[in-house]
Amino acid sequence: MQVFFSEFIGTFILVLMGAGVCANVSLKGTLGSAAGWVAISFGWGLAVFSGVWVSAPSGAHLNPAVTLGLMVNPEATELAPGVPKAMATALVYVAAQFIGAFLGAVVAWLAYKKHFDEPANQGKVLGIFATGPAIRSYGWNTVSEIIGTFVLVFVIGGFGGTPHGLGPLAVGLLVVAIGLSLGGATGYAINPARDLAPRLAHAVLPIPGKGSSDWSYSWVPVVGPLAGGALGGLAVAVLL
Amino acid sequence: MQVFFSEFIGTFILVLMGAGVCANVSLKGTLGSAAGWVAISFGWGLAVFSGVWVSAPSGAHLNPAVTLGLMVNPEATELAPGVPKAMATALVYVAAQFIGAFLGAVVAWLAYKKHFDEPANQGKVLGIFATGPAIRSYGWNTVSEIIGTFVLVFVIGGFGGTPHGLGPLAVGLLVVAIGLSLGGATGYAINPARDLAPRLAHAVLPIPGKGSSDWSYSWVPVVGPLAGGALGGLAVAVLL
Amino acid sequence: MQVFFSEFIGTFILVLMGAGVCANVSLKGTLGSAAGWVAISFGWGLAVFSGVWVSAPSGAHLNPAVTLGLMVNPEATELAPGVPKAMATALVYVAAQFIGAFLGAVVAWLAYKKHFDEPANQGKVLGIFATGPAIRSYGWNTVSEIIGTFVLVFVIGGFGGTPHGLGPLAVGLLVVAIGLSLGGATGYAINPARDLAPRLAHAVLPIPGKGSSDWSYSWVPVVGPLAGGALGGLAVAVLL
Amino acid sequence: MQVFFSEFIGTFILVLMGAGVCANVSLKGTLGSAAGWVAISFGWGLAVFSGVWVSAPSGAHLNPAVTLGLMVNPEATELAPGVPKAMATALVYVAAQFIGAFLGAVVAWLAYKKHFDEPANQGKVLGIFATGPAIRSYGWNTVSEIIGTFVLVFVIGGFGGTPHGLGPLAVGLLVVAIGLSLGGATGYAINPARDLAPRLAHAVLPIPGKGSSDWSYSWVPVVGPLAGGALGGLAVAVLL
Repeated sequence: MQVFFSEFIGTFILVLMGAGVCANVSLKGTLGSAAGWVAISFGWGLAVFSGVWVSAPSGAHLNPAVTLGLMVNPEATELAPGVPKAMATALVYVAAQFIGAFLGAVVAWLAYKKHFDEPANQGKVLGIFATGPAIRSYGWNTVSEIIGTFVLVFVIGGFGGTPHGLGPLAVGLLVVAIGLSLGGATGYAINPARDLAPRLAHAVLPIPGKGSSDWSYSWVPVVGPLAGGALGGLAVAVLL
Repeated sequence: MQVFFSEFIGTFILVLMGAGVCANVSLKGTLGSAAGWVAISFGWGLAVFSGVWVSAPSGAHLNPAVTLGLMVNPEATELAPGVPKAMATALVYVAAQFIGAFLGAVVAWLAYKKHFDEPANQGKVLGIFATGPAIRSYGWNTVSEIIGTFVLVFVIGGFGGTPHGLGPLAVGLLVVAIGLSLGGATGYAINPARDLAPRLAHAVLPIPGKGSSDWSYSWVPVVGPLAGGALGGLAVAVLL
Repeated sequence: MQVFFSEFIGTFILVLMGAGVCANVSLKGTLGSAAGWVAISFGWGLAVFSGVWVSAPSGAHLNPAVTLGLMVNPEATELAPGVPKAMATALVYVAAQFIGAFLGAVVAWLAYKKHFDEPANQGKVLGIFATGPAIRSYGWNTVSEIIGTFVLVFVIGGFGGTPHGLGPLAVGLLVVAIGLSLGGATGYAINPARDLAPRLAHAVLPIPGKGSSDWSYSWVPVVGPLAGGALGGLAVAVLL
Repeated sequence: MQVFFSEFIGTFILVLMGAGVCANVSLKGTLGSAAGWVAISFGWGLAVFSGVWVSAPSGAHLNPAVTLGLMVNPEATELAPGVPKAMATALVYVAAQFIGAFLGAVVAWLAYKKHFDEPANQGKVLGIFATGPAIRSYGWNTVSEIIGTFVLVFVIGGFGGTPHGLGPLAVGLLVVAIGLSLGGATGYAINPARDLAPRLAHAVLPIPGKGSSDWSYSWVPVVGPLAGGALGGLAVAVLL
């Protein structure tokens, strides 16, 4: 149960701040309107940084792809210090991540409620909740998500010697780096919970003129990150 | 008395540099004119970073919402190492924060004196001292401030294991993150002293053509942060 | 063999993310299109940061200029903790760096495949793989590369007292700094493997309308960094 | 003598990279042309970060205002660990700082030699070497320099408990913060050596059409930082 609350609250903070930076940059009339990709990349990276700080008991996965990467890595025996590896526990992680991500997106919407209510903002609303491709191509979009998530899970696997207290900074800067470098084709979901749960929030929230939730694309940021996370976890076992 | 000077000088540095970055970005003809929201977010975050370094004896609250968050958290027994929790001490904290914030705003004005004296700069002057809403709505603006301050106080509550020396960086980057993600609707006061005391400085300083100090909005960045800080402090006790 | 895999995988991550940020900023229609030099500098610096984390066993050179700097420094007795200095070992480092850099560039191309296939993007494609001069002058371009690489190798030589866990951040921020300050004349290869191997990838990959690989310039980002690395290594021995 | 070389090489790296970022952003046709104030602030801050790493034996002052701040602080008994406080030693520090800053500016000119030779670039050349006011007012410009340098020296005085290895990052980020917040009125010399020695380099280097070295302003970034450093050093003794 402590694991559930830890993952829940960490993913809540992650998506609240991540969806928040997208709202700030994308919606018209906000103070950070049009602050650009550097703001997006640092905003998401530091959202991870913030979420990790409040998620220590569960090891701060905040991402089903990270949980999967540990599950498939035969050298990893625990999901977090003191949390033995088990399928049932992994499902608790994933459930907490989805619920936290959903609520984070809802609260981000509340933080920018008046801007979401402006009719002029309808075009970019979905991009605040869920990722989408710059050029639609399900196959290549999946490849981009696999590569980004592989880097995330594999490099985290190299953090073994990080002193306590530096871990949140290391993973935060890694996500800044992935956003800057590998995020430009698909918006770097690299996390099924971060994409699917806020997409569901988009579908159910009463946003005027919000348009489609683009469910036809929604499997890409689930399948790609899971494949990339599994590959990353195996690569950690083989290469590190 | 040591607590008073510590909070005073830390909040002085915080607001001097925070108001400074707003002056640099907002006033015409400065070298950082129009540097944008990334500059604002990193400027305020690193202003916190700088202020925390000189405020160790009092635990570097620099913010009545942080002090309130500790007061309402039943698990916290001290306001800083060696400083027992007491209402009278908390009031010393808050008084020092307000005086420091007021003087910081005055010195920021001196640093950009010639730019404040240019008539062309009158439009954005209040925004250098105090926050204001992108879309005015007292209720939703308060919600935005509650959410931002909740994140601040709650995530700081997770810093327990931070090694000495990393704390200033962690809180500084957290404030960068809040600015990028949750600051775009109201300018993220997330600190009653940071907003109300510089607003008073705006009202009394001899700035040509400075216009209104917008006192009708001034309660939002006091009430919102106090509510968010109290909620954050309670959440620390319950969830972390 | 462990040294080979360590250098290989670290340089792979470095060039995958470094070429990735150039693709994201340079190609049309990506989400980070036109994010500018701040994005480029932080992207490459944090690519180094990420690569170093997975390359601990070999000391994370990721760069023949760094390996050469250690070889010519008479005070350095090891290439990494437990790896004695020997010409054959140094050649293993360099071979792994070139292979990793080549594959990193190929995978970056895959991550942005659909954007590389757009005819509109042909002009800037080479710059994603290899560096080029802002003003062509083989002599002065070589001087710029010598200076940038000297700073890289010399300042890394001062990292002796860095605590474990901070090294990746220190070298990452150093590369951000070099990009911002000394990268504007030649694009700061400062690493023969990072430039020559991706240039070869550019030559062989099936990119529509990709144009010349500019082999006439290709020796500058090899000779300049090697000279700068050797000078830096000697300066470490003499001055630090 | 070790102190001399340590200050010399640290200040050399500082000004080489600092003047380099100004050249990259200010000169036409460079790759970082027009990257803006965020690039300038991070470039100078990370230049300090880099210089401090190679200047450990002398405590990495790199700045006569820092040396003066320690001299006037009665509680400081050493200029660096193992370096007793003495006027003659302080003069060695300052001499090394000036020589290092002069040579750093010369090498930055070499790194961008072809861009300095372009006639189109004549307008902004002095700003690469030395600071200048956005609005000329010797009195208020001096006030701005006093405030910025006070913050630098005073906050460094709070770094007492910083673990070894974090010091360069702390001072680098502090300088980023000062640039963003207090640098917009005068270009934040906050260091007499950083301004006066490169101004001399500007006067003697053969740069086509370089124009005046503005000696009438040159005393402001000497007197202001010295006054601010002395005030900061006294404030450390009284307040921290």
